[in-house]
Amino acid sequence: MTIITLLTDYGAADTYVGQLKGAILAISPSVTLVDLTHSVPAQNVRAGAFLLWTGVEAFPPGSIHLAVVDPGVGTARRAIAAKCARGDFFVGPDNGLLPAAINRLGGLTDAVELTQSKYWSPRVYPTFHGRDLFAPVAGHLARGAPLRELGEGIADLQGPLSFPLPNERGDALHGEILHVDSFGTLITNIRGDQLADEFALTVRGRRIVGSQTAVFESVAERMLVGLVGSAGLVEIALRNGSAATELRATAGEPITAQPTRRQAPVT
Amino acid sequence: MTIITLLTDYGAADTYVGQLKGAILAISPSVTLVDLTHSVPAQNVRAGAFLLWTGVEAFPPGSIHLAVVDPGVGTARRAIAAKCARGDFFVGPDNGLLPAAINRLGGLTDAVELTQSKYWSPRVYPTFHGRDLFAPVAGHLARGAPLRELGEGIADLQGPLSFPLPNERGDALHGEILHVDSFGTLITNIRGDQLADEFALTVRGRRIVGSQTAVFESVAERMLVGLVGSAGLVEIALRNGSAATELRATAGEPITAQPTRRQAPVT
Amino acid sequence: MTIITLLTDYGAADTYVGQLKGAILAISPSVTLVDLTHSVPAQNVRAGAFLLWTGVEAFPPGSIHLAVVDPGVGTARRAIAAKCARGDFFVGPDNGLLPAAINRLGGLTDAVELTQSKYWSPRVYPTFHGRDLFAPVAGHLARGAPLRELGEGIADLQGPLSFPLPNERGDALHGEILHVDSFGTLITNIRGDQLADEFALTVRGRRIVGSQTAVFESVAERMLVGLVGSAGLVEIALRNGSAATELRATAGEPITAQPTRRQAPVT
Repeated sequence: MTIITLLTDYGAADTYVGQLKGAILAISPSVTLVDLTHSVPAQNVRAGAFLLWTGVEAFPPGSIHLAVVDPGVGTARRAIAAKCARGDFFVGPDNGLLPAAINRLGGLTDAVELTQSKYWSPRVYPTFHGRDLFAPVAGHLARGAPLRELGEGIADLQGPLSFPLPNERGDALHGEILHVDSFGTLITNIRGDQLADEFALTVRGRRIVGSQTAVFESVAERMLVGLVGSAGLVEIALRNGSAATELRATAGEPITAQPTRRQAPVT
Repeated sequence: MTIITLLTDYGAADTYVGQLKGAILAISPSVTLVDLTHSVPAQNVRAGAFLLWTGVEAFPPGSIHLAVVDPGVGTARRAIAAKCARGDFFVGPDNGLLPAAINRLGGLTDAVELTQSKYWSPRVYPTFHGRDLFAPVAGHLARGAPLRELGEGIADLQGPLSFPLPNERGDALHGEILHVDSFGTLITNIRGDQLADEFALTVRGRRIVGSQTAVFESVAERMLVGLVGSAGLVEIALRNGSAATELRATAGEPITAQPTRRQAPVT
Repeated sequence: MTIITLLTDYGAADTYVGQLKGAILAISPSVTLVDLTHSVPAQNVRAGAFLLWTGVEAFPPGSIHLAVVDPGVGTARRAIAAKCARGDFFVGPDNGLLPAAINRLGGLTDAVELTQSKYWSPRVYPTFHGRDLFAPVAGHLARGAPLRELGEGIADLQGPLSFPLPNERGDALHGEILHVDSFGTLITNIRGDQLADEFALTVRGRRIVGSQTAVFESVAERMLVGLVGSAGLVEIALRNGSAATELRATAGEPITAQPTRRQAPVT
């Protein structure tokens, strides 16, 4: 019962995701296919890397993660498959999409450039490696094909192992918004375990109080709250609404975090 | 081959649904996962309750229905699992999301507050009980864990067993629009079996004729028609268009139904 | 491990797709269900026929393709099941939705009008044949029910076997845009194998160069490129953007293709 997770920027309006699944099932009929998301903004590798990073840990070790956000499809960028320390496999383009997620599952233990075309579809269209190259490779991995038979070993992957890290200056951490989720919650690059029990966040001139144990309903209706979200990262949420709309903030926005214990009491 | 259905307000843009599925599969690798919908309007428990009610009956008895629309996540609201007369299980927050669907499948036969943390993920983030508490519990139910081992028995659930019922005044039923579907069809709280063979509906000052056997093409292009929809409820549809746009009507709009047989002929 | 693919115009906001899957699983619990797409524009049979045509080939022979875009549901249009030369089955309304896809898989070998109600749900709502008639029939086919037991044989299906074909005038092919995908790429009705190695496309007064081997990154950022897409059809894409937005073009727009070799050099 091997699991293959799928993350792409293909959207839901076309049959691209369905075709990719058909190509997997044609090789490995009994896999369990699970969509991570297909709503990565078109060709946005960095957003895809973040979303992949959020999704993989919940799956059982040994899962196969197929991720395709691939503006360079058909060019010289490498197609790769990799194994990580937890035992999971990753398949996708070598453009920075995979490393953060691989790192989250213990780091890289082996990787190959996909050069053995016998594991691909007989005809590979240059604009759809997802269906014609990556999907068949994932199907063969699910059937037990050894990683090293898929291509030649490579030492390193392109792209960063993590997202931009916050800087410490005095008692403050200076970070940024990494992602806005579909509730309008702002997810930052500051880890919850980097902050004190209670903290204040500043974004776009607004000061928002937060704590390690806060939840959406810790504040009154339509109020902003800082909390530690389900990825272990500090988030800003609006109870019964969208913090992104309220603050007019998007990915890349700077954010500052400070402990509130040290602040002078209001007089 | 146990089925777990999933209904949330998580949307498709993030990996939240994928993470929830990963958490289920980590415990119960051979379940069949089926999405009911993840497009419940954010934190709208009433809309979620309606959509869950529409979805469950089509599944075979004994299915497990995991539903999470949970603005109070991490607060004192109870997390519950319940069994209904048809043999299906329900897992979710005790905030009014589940009772109407449970009632549709024969009513409650047993329920527990989820207090046994050994059936949860080792770490439960306070804002993601879907992944860390409800999903593992659903996975354990699918593996055969007895309901009563998951927590302590409770007698009643929060929230209404049905949607607001129409009132009868003279020969007219006064009801309301419960839901607007993605075709723009207006679904009312009036059951088809409460009306005569032919009837007239009045909404926002417009009179629309309908019948028990009407379908979209019973009327000319771009005309409104009253019919009995696939949930057994009276609906207003526009052939080749959106009745909601045509009538500028949304959920909560009042609607009146009357038999047309008794009406005086137009002179 | 039979596969049933699903294509509808039901969207993601309601539970209609979930109900259809429940009705299949109630009959055939071990099928593998794969969504092709549920975002066909509402009641747009022609768009559905194109999307179905794009999706089916990637699946293994013998798959069952359930397609429902059915503005005439509940009227005299026939409900059908068909078998094609590759061994796949198709189930859906006889309104032009299925023939192009059937033709792509080798053409029709047998077809029946669905008249045997013992293969349907006990109660068939006139507006939801997807759940109450087509889904159960697909479930029974997956369990091995012979096609001819589902109804009476019919000789021909309604609707064209292919999309409108381009016309040749001099050295030019005059075609049209068949579909705009979610990347904003324009997919034409001109096959790649009808053109020379290098070609020029004209749409809405703009001339766009292309080639058999072009990919998105063959041109500079924000430039238009002609290429042969993953369905074997000529497409117009914009690198890092939407060609549809750039050209303000939609389905039905005329397009002309000419070889560039024969053109006089610019002086």
